[in-house]
Amino acid sequence: MLIALDAMGGDHAPEEPCKGAILACREKPHLSIALIGDSEKIRPFVEKAEKSVRSRLEIVHTTEVITGSDSPSLSIRRKKGSSLVLGFEMVRSKEADGIVSSGNTGAIAAGAVLLLGRIPGIDRPALGALLPVVNRKTILMDVGGTVHCKPINLMQFAQMGTIYMKLFIGVENPSVRLLCNGEEATKGDETIAAAREMIEKSSMNYQGYAEGKDIPAGISDVVICDGFTGNVLIKFAEGVGELLNSQFREEYTHHLLPKVGLFFMWPAMKRVMGRFDWEKYGGAPVLGVNGSVVKVHGRSRANAISHAITGAANFIERSGVDRIREAIESGIENGNN
Amino acid sequence: MLIALDAMGGDHAPEEPCKGAILACREKPHLSIALIGDSEKIRPFVEKAEKSVRSRLEIVHTTEVITGSDSPSLSIRRKKGSSLVLGFEMVRSKEADGIVSSGNTGAIAAGAVLLLGRIPGIDRPALGALLPVVNRKTILMDVGGTVHCKPINLMQFAQMGTIYMKLFIGVENPSVRLLCNGEEATKGDETIAAAREMIEKSSMNYQGYAEGKDIPAGISDVVICDGFTGNVLIKFAEGVGELLNSQFREEYTHHLLPKVGLFFMWPAMKRVMGRFDWEKYGGAPVLGVNGSVVKVHGRSRANAISHAITGAANFIERSGVDRIREAIESGIENGNN
Repeated sequence: MLIALDAMGGDHAPEEPCKGAILACREKPHLSIALIGDSEKIRPFVEKAEKSVRSRLEIVHTTEVITGSDSPSLSIRRKKGSSLVLGFEMVRSKEADGIVSSGNTGAIAAGAVLLLGRIPGIDRPALGALLPVVNRKTILMDVGGTVHCKPINLMQFAQMGTIYMKLFIGVENPSVRLLCNGEEATKGDETIAAAREMIEKSSMNYQGYAEGKDIPAGISDVVICDGFTGNVLIKFAEGVGELLNSQFREEYTHHLLPKVGLFFMWPAMKRVMGRFDWEKYGGAPVLGVNGSVVKVHGRSRANAISHAITGAANFIERSGVDRIREAIESGIENGNN
Repeated sequence: MLIALDAMGGDHAPEEPCKGAILACREKPHLSIALIGDSEKIRPFVEKAEKSVRSRLEIVHTTEVITGSDSPSLSIRRKKGSSLVLGFEMVRSKEADGIVSSGNTGAIAAGAVLLLGRIPGIDRPALGALLPVVNRKTILMDVGGTVHCKPINLMQFAQMGTIYMKLFIGVENPSVRLLCNGEEATKGDETIAAAREMIEKSSMNYQGYAEGKDIPAGISDVVICDGFTGNVLIKFAEGVGELLNSQFREEYTHHLLPKVGLFFMWPAMKRVMGRFDWEKYGGAPVLGVNGSVVKVHGRSRANAISHAITGAANFIERSGVDRIREAIESGIENGNN
């Protein structure tokens, strides 16, 4: 299996993507990785790998990069030589089986749609973020694939989230909720009300609206929202985690008692704080397109990138795309059965 | 000064609202409070107050209540005898100077508009939530007043937020940002782009888009978003705070080391966690209407309710409504000067 890795995306490129690739290859002995980017900058890191790994790393040279300020669909159309477009082309031509990138979220979603195409019946793709909340994992989607959603989009996100949780997390009958500004049926707007009606009519395990506070409490396996709200939320969580981290650090640098306390508490603290370290959960799958595409956070380090690569590999091994396609075709999740 | 308190709203009514009223009266010697609700249930709490406070508490009897599942504007029109409508009527007739309620957010916003009316020039009201973030206070608005916003609404929220931070927090030239799914100008949608253009043309201290992670980091004095996003976000923060609390509690119940550590760390922990305890910051002002209206969280205890009451009193003392009206009329914040 070959996975294309956009080695020039993210804040710590190419060092961390290269190190992440090496970690992933160590974990999965049948995995090969194409590192796409500036070969001169990438080579030194590849050469550090042990022989058994190095033989499974290839470099695809390019120096063109899509930046955060590039317009998503324009950059996909114009920057034909960029690491991201080259990676998508490798997947389209079946040379690679999947792609992992920490680049511009909008460009990844646009590239996935324009170059790989949507799964028949799926209107818009969604990025799913797997959150480790109380007593379960919750997939929150969309977190940035589709900024504005029609009811049908939200409905299809729920279908894809249901399939993802069944297939990859092993949840038997995943519960689904729509994120809303209140739990009562009178809340929300026309789009959310229409999506609710569609999901209620389906065979999905719909349980009602979720409020913001219900997500960390682990109310549901699947929580659905538009890409604007999901993106703001996931980044807010990241910011809260960082605030906690910096505040605790400040407390124990300036006061003696907390320092003593921290010595004893550190293991517990790390367990609790880990829940808010979304980065380590290895990337958001782009669902609804013809390929295994995983977006990793721009600030990801080697570990997170390695998790994203092995996540993409698992998606391929379990035929994630085919399973979504079959479910949509047979209408299993939308009440047509 | 008389403030109407909806004593039947919230999860701990009427006990906590009554206790909150007593605390507020102790703090503000010129304050009187009208407790609106079931007099039989309210009286026992009022009677517990010392004489100097009791003489400033009056009971306005009613048993009708607007619930969370009531449609906001319909319930305001139909439930004429509800504690919320009676409170608004007292403000409209100038009998009371302001109102505090922990009831249904939508009904409070609808009641404020229908019964008190909007400030001339203001299209839609906004609820502002004051968040204690790194090194500053940030007002996030709207958090539930106007679910769907047009560009002009977001612009006016920015104006009102600017005035609020100047007047009540003492920030000289409050910085303003629009919440968006990215910091680059290419992000967002047409509504946000149009609002950005309007705000940029004004004399406000606009500094660009804010991402979700920038809010806890204290990027700006004023952060503007639509009421759906703000509501989901503020409740998500609440949920994260609760998760942290419960996780730490679990850790130190089940393990000895954290228990020892916690003994030393407790004061620091409380300081840090306090930042996420939005409840204690005493309510969200409803801005843009002809009156001092403060919404408190449904789960608020006496302390939070007391803060909300004194907050409403401060708004009245500093002629908050007049100041917003003057600013909108003179166009100070929208570049007409």
